[in-house]
Amino acid sequence: METLGIDLGTRSYSIYVGQGLLQTLSSYLASRDTWVLITDDIVDRLYGERLIGEWKDSTMYRIVLPAGEDTKTLTRVEETIESMLNLGVTRSSGIIALGGGVVGDVAGFCASIYMRGIAYAQVPTTLLAQVDSSVGGKTAVNMPQGKNAVGSFYQPEVVVIDTTTLRTLPHRQLISGLAEVMKYGVIADYEFLTYLQEHLGAILALEDQVLERIVTRCCGIKAEIVAADEREAGLRRVLNYGHTVAHALEAVTKYGTYTHGEAVLIGMYLEAEMARKLGLLGHDDCSEILDLIQRLGSEVELEFKLEHSLLSNMVFMMGKDKKNRDGKIAFVLPIGAGQTREVLLTNKEAQSLLECL
Amino acid sequence: METLGIDLGTRSYSIYVGQGLLQTLSSYLASRDTWVLITDDIVDRLYGERLIGEWKDSTMYRIVLPAGEDTKTLTRVEETIESMLNLGVTRSSGIIALGGGVVGDVAGFCASIYMRGIAYAQVPTTLLAQVDSSVGGKTAVNMPQGKNAVGSFYQPEVVVIDTTTLRTLPHRQLISGLAEVMKYGVIADYEFLTYLQEHLGAILALEDQVLERIVTRCCGIKAEIVAADEREAGLRRVLNYGHTVAHALEAVTKYGTYTHGEAVLIGMYLEAEMARKLGLLGHDDCSEILDLIQRLGSEVELEFKLEHSLLSNMVFMMGKDKKNRDGKIAFVLPIGAGQTREVLLTNKEAQSLLECL
Repeated sequence: METLGIDLGTRSYSIYVGQGLLQTLSSYLASRDTWVLITDDIVDRLYGERLIGEWKDSTMYRIVLPAGEDTKTLTRVEETIESMLNLGVTRSSGIIALGGGVVGDVAGFCASIYMRGIAYAQVPTTLLAQVDSSVGGKTAVNMPQGKNAVGSFYQPEVVVIDTTTLRTLPHRQLISGLAEVMKYGVIADYEFLTYLQEHLGAILALEDQVLERIVTRCCGIKAEIVAADEREAGLRRVLNYGHTVAHALEAVTKYGTYTHGEAVLIGMYLEAEMARKLGLLGHDDCSEILDLIQRLGSEVELEFKLEHSLLSNMVFMMGKDKKNRDGKIAFVLPIGAGQTREVLLTNKEAQSLLECL
Repeated sequence: METLGIDLGTRSYSIYVGQGLLQTLSSYLASRDTWVLITDDIVDRLYGERLIGEWKDSTMYRIVLPAGEDTKTLTRVEETIESMLNLGVTRSSGIIALGGGVVGDVAGFCASIYMRGIAYAQVPTTLLAQVDSSVGGKTAVNMPQGKNAVGSFYQPEVVVIDTTTLRTLPHRQLISGLAEVMKYGVIADYEFLTYLQEHLGAILALEDQVLERIVTRCCGIKAEIVAADEREAGLRRVLNYGHTVAHALEAVTKYGTYTHGEAVLIGMYLEAEMARKLGLLGHDDCSEILDLIQRLGSEVELEFKLEHSLLSNMVFMMGKDKKNRDGKIAFVLPIGAGQTREVLLTNKEAQSLLECL
């Protein structure tokens, strides 16, 4: 097992990464009279029921949400909070968010606003959640006008990652998580990128040691970035490589065509090409990045060439991105050697650049 | 004009208190391209329309909520946020909360969760909001199961208090605010309590200099308390003098009989008596406190003796208070000389004490 710290002053916490940690979950949690397990129906069947059945240390309530992105609504948050009030959950109780990014986002947001904030533990069970959404305290739900349009920065009191839960993860979700995994290599650690290239077979074969190692490295990189810039005033934006394109692609395809990770793969592909075209990224670096993206993409038969009409709609969506500044679209582009640069482009500039890739 | 600082590290901000500040509001605000004025229909007619009409420095949208406590719901928050999304409000926009406590709570909560948090300015127009809810960053809405059951700790970037807005305040609302004003004297500054006793006539006659002075003193006391304990882990609880009884009284009378300040007057009355009965508060100190409470109460024909059946229901409600600890009801009781002590009582202890007052 690996233990990482995330240094946020009075809001600092630990991230535990290892195999089988779910079986001794309570030993990683603070001592509390009452916990509320928030999970989804799929994860509940796989892990929640057994967790509840074997729980002895304190009172444990359970709230089961429908699996899937449609659960990320304010209405669902309100229902969850009503359930918690009816159960008698107090300020000294804690929430355990057991599941993927959707569960983490909804449970974390509920924790942040329930009686003005109670403790919560992130126990992510998907690769995407383990390397990305469970660390750093971003919580959110969607609005008809935009994904993650409502939420909070609210740190968990601990993150417990059992990498053996990845054994039950559908292949498509594994690839989706690997998109974010490789992003860390591109933005912060080229040696890690090389490691991924060399060990892709072992990763796809779900070898425990390799999974534990890559999750640990990703959490370490994310913890450093978040510690330096908790509320995304600057440095934390590097995490958005691939995401300006990805968010727009997900929006114009109404979140029905691509998983988030697939959209990120396409986003990283196009944004690496943009960087090369702008003279920010050398040819060899670009090829190395595109190569791994394509290997991951081929696992889910992903196409990287998008139609012009789709690109045009995407640029319109990008124009409304909440990360934009001074009326310009913000892209985080790779410049090689594990570094990035933020580039602001007008809608027109972005459109012509994307269309000539 | 007086300028106070509230020291919260990177979240520090200024509180401006003076006469006529609304006329030059923009000079107290940060420079932003876009503001959203959130107010209620009554305040909009009194001050909002003119503010918008004379606004020249930036884009100003306006969202008008129905006046009254019924506006403090998650549904209203969702509607307000949808309006902001449709208006194109971005992360660099700010909210101006112009109105009483309801507007401040709803607008502040919207600010705290809109795109994970945007800036907001508190511009309180009622005495209660000027001396209490606008300072300290507590935001909340109600749930069927409890008042302020959902919310956040989220600091404004500035508080601008124009005490001349108190001229349009209904007398009952003025008395309600004065309940919180005198609370500061009891919990932190007996000289201020004496000042209030001596100047009550001038206060009730809305003399500008006196109003400015008392609002400034209250904000100063609150700023010190909040700076020492932003998230109510300890010291901030002193602000709850009178409020354990008040919240229960408001709840059992379904928020329809008393204003918050009237409930606080009754709460302070009963809790001072409790303190005397427990031997914590001397006879003379108790008399001085009860005297001012009764003078304020007589302005609104308030009765301080409650029926046994009402008290019994109230104790049941107190048992569910979110401030309770270890299964006991937490009371903050005055002990004289501007100091308080927290006392934890079982339901039974609280009941027998209250019934024999």
